[in-house]
Amino acid sequence: MAGAEFESLEQCLEKHLPLADLREVKRILYGKETRELNLPRGAFEAATKGDFELLGCAFEAVEEQQRRPRTVRVGLVQNRTPLPADTPVVKQVTALHRRIAAIAEVAAMCGVNIICFQEAWTMPFAFCTREKLPWTEFAESAEDGPTTRFCQELSRKHGMVVVSPILERDVEHGDVLWNTAVVISNSGKVLGKTRKNHIPRVGDFNESTYYMEGNLGHPVFQTPFGRIAVNICYGRHHPLNWLMFSINGAEIIFNPSATIGVLSESLWPIEARNAAIANHCFTCAINRVGEERFPNEFTSGDGKKAHQDFGYFYGSSYVAAPDGSRTPGLPRNRDGLLVAELDLNLCRQTSDIWGFKMTGRYEMYAQELAEAVKPSYSPNIVKE
Amino acid sequence: MAGAEFESLEQCLEKHLPLADLREVKRILYGKETRELNLPRGAFEAATKGDFELLGCAFEAVEEQQRRPRTVRVGLVQNRTPLPADTPVVKQVTALHRRIAAIAEVAAMCGVNIICFQEAWTMPFAFCTREKLPWTEFAESAEDGPTTRFCQELSRKHGMVVVSPILERDVEHGDVLWNTAVVISNSGKVLGKTRKNHIPRVGDFNESTYYMEGNLGHPVFQTPFGRIAVNICYGRHHPLNWLMFSINGAEIIFNPSATIGVLSESLWPIEARNAAIANHCFTCAINRVGEERFPNEFTSGDGKKAHQDFGYFYGSSYVAAPDGSRTPGLPRNRDGLLVAELDLNLCRQTSDIWGFKMTGRYEMYAQELAEAVKPSYSPNIVKE
Repeated sequence: MAGAEFESLEQCLEKHLPLADLREVKRILYGKETRELNLPRGAFEAATKGDFELLGCAFEAVEEQQRRPRTVRVGLVQNRTPLPADTPVVKQVTALHRRIAAIAEVAAMCGVNIICFQEAWTMPFAFCTREKLPWTEFAESAEDGPTTRFCQELSRKHGMVVVSPILERDVEHGDVLWNTAVVISNSGKVLGKTRKNHIPRVGDFNESTYYMEGNLGHPVFQTPFGRIAVNICYGRHHPLNWLMFSINGAEIIFNPSATIGVLSESLWPIEARNAAIANHCFTCAINRVGEERFPNEFTSGDGKKAHQDFGYFYGSSYVAAPDGSRTPGLPRNRDGLLVAELDLNLCRQTSDIWGFKMTGRYEMYAQELAEAVKPSYSPNIVKE
Repeated sequence: MAGAEFESLEQCLEKHLPLADLREVKRILYGKETRELNLPRGAFEAATKGDFELLGCAFEAVEEQQRRPRTVRVGLVQNRTPLPADTPVVKQVTALHRRIAAIAEVAAMCGVNIICFQEAWTMPFAFCTREKLPWTEFAESAEDGPTTRFCQELSRKHGMVVVSPILERDVEHGDVLWNTAVVISNSGKVLGKTRKNHIPRVGDFNESTYYMEGNLGHPVFQTPFGRIAVNICYGRHHPLNWLMFSINGAEIIFNPSATIGVLSESLWPIEARNAAIANHCFTCAINRVGEERFPNEFTSGDGKKAHQDFGYFYGSSYVAAPDGSRTPGLPRNRDGLLVAELDLNLCRQTSDIWGFKMTGRYEMYAQELAEAVKPSYSPNIVKE
C-alpha cells in the first residue's frame, strides 16, 4: 500500500494483539514505555475542530541529588500543504502560516516550550519538478523574511522557541538559495540559523539542482529550555552529522524532513532513533503528510511514465530518547501535533551508563578519516 | 518478561495479525520482504535432531549487464553454553567445539560460504564476575590455539570461511589478553585477526577489567566470497567503527555479540540495521542465548543483592541489508543457525541510489573531529 489507507503501526498492533503480547512487542520495538501526558481537554477539542491529531507523551529520568528534573516540552508539527501547488505563491504561504498558527495555538495550550515545523514548511516539496519558477519564489531571507517575522510573532505570543525550516535566499551572498532552519528564541529574537549539511541526489529529491551543502558547520543553540540543534532531512542518514551536533553539546536534535513511502518508510523508525542512542540525546523526527501534485508533469528517473504527483509523505513523526525508548508515531495520514515532555537529565544519565563519548576514540577516527580522504589512500585490506 | 517465555517478535505478529495488516506491519518494520531459502530437508532434520532452529532467507539485487549476481551464503550461529560454568575449562571448550561442529555440519549442507560464531564463543561470558581465574584460562593464541586449529579443520572440511571470536592471549606481547576475532580462509589458512575496538564499562560487562581497546585498526578481509569485517559487540554502538570498516571496503560486517535483555533488547534491532543502511553494506548481528550461572556470587552495581546469574541473553540474531530490509530474527530462546543468501551487488546498487559516501563530506568531519578532541576545544554554541 504505502499510501494513506494504513493509519499507523501502533494503532494496528493495539487493535490485534492480546495485552500480554502487546506489552512484549512494545518492549522489544520501543523500549521503556513513555507515559501518556495529561493534556488539557480544550487542546483536544481544538485539535478535533482543526482536524489534526494531538498526541502527548512523557519520558522520565531518575531523580538526582544536585540537579532538579530539567523537563521541557517539545512540539513536533506535521502537515499537508493546504492549497494546490498551482495557487499563487503568496496565497500558499499565507494558508500555511494560518494552518501553523492554529496548531501552534494548541501547542501553547499544551505548554510546549520548543516547537519545530517540517522541512521547507512554507511550500510544496517542489524539487521533484526541477523547474525553477515559481518554486524559487518561496525562498525568503532567514533574518527578516515574512516567515521569520511570522515565527517571531508566534514566539513572542506564546513564549516558545520556534524552529522554522525554510527555503532561504541569501541576498548578501549573491542571491544564493539554501535549505535552512531559522531558530527563534522564546524572546522573539532570531537566535541564528543552521543549514542542511548533506544534500540528496535520490529519486525525485533533486535538491542538488537548487542548493548546495550547508556552510555553517554544526552549531548548537543554547535556549532556556536546553541546547538544541537541527539536522535537516537527508542529514539523518549521516551518523557523523548527528555526532558533531552532539559533540557540540546538543541535548535535543530536530530532524525536520520530507520523505516518501516507497523510498524510506522502513528506514524512518531506525535512523533518528539510532542517533538518539549513539549520541545520548533526544531526537525529533518530523515528516510531512499526504500527496502533492504539480502543474506540469515530470519523470522520475525510474523508467516510468511522466506524472504530476510526488509519492506519499507518510507522516509518522516521533521522538526518540537517549535510552532507546521512543514515542508512538503520529498517524501516517493526518496532520498532527506531537507534544513530548523530556527530562533532559536523561541525556547525562544515559551517557554515564553507556559511555559512548568516553569510549569513542575520536582522535583515532580523526586520523583515520584524514588518511581515508587522501587521493593516495590505500584501504586496509588483508588478502591471502 | 525479558526472559525465555517470549519466543520472537515475528512469531507473535504472525500469530495474531490479519494477513493484510501483517504485510503492512512487516513493510514498515522490516522493509522489502526477504525470500525464503529452499534449504535441503536433511538440514532441517539434522537441526531438529540437534535441537536448534534453522532459518533460511535470501536478499535479492537487480540484474546488471556487466556483473553477474554475487551471491554468497552466510551462516550466523547463536547458542547456549552447553555445560555449567563450574565444569573444568577444557571440558567446557570441548563441549562447545562439539556443539559448533554439529551446527557447522548443517551449515555446510545449506551451502554456507562464511560462518560466524558469537562473541567469545568458547566460554561463558564470565566478565561479570571480575574474577581472573579460571576465566582467563579460556584465552588462547589466535594463530595456533586449539580453537583456531579446530576452526581450520572446519574450514578445510567444508570449504568455508570461518569467523571465530575468541578471548585471545598474546604471548608475543607480554601475555596480554584481547577480545579478538580470527578469520580463517576457506583454504584453512589463518587470514588474520581483528580486535574489539570499543570496550564497555556498562552494567555487568566489566570487560575493561580484562582487556583494552583493539590496536589493529579496521582491517577488511578479502575472501573469495566477498570482503568481510568484524565489529565485535559493543563496537556496534559506535557509528564510526562501522564507517571505517565500510570505508576500507567491507561488504559484509559481522557483529558477534553477547548482550542481555534488560540492558539492550530494544536497541538490538536498531543499531546493526542502521549500520547496514548508513554504510551500504550487509550487517550480521549475532547474540548468544540463555542464562549463565557462575560458581561465586557477584554484585551488579545496581543496588541489588549479590547473585550468581548473568541476565538473559536473548538471541534474536539477524541480517540487515544495505536497502534497510532485514531477515526475521532467530528465536529469543533457542540455539539457532540463520542462513542468509546475499547478493553483494546490492551494496553498490544501493550506494548508487542513496550516495551516502559521495555526500559524506568526510574531509570536513576529519577536521571537525581533530578540533573537537583538543583539550582547548570550544564547542560551537550560539547564545542569545
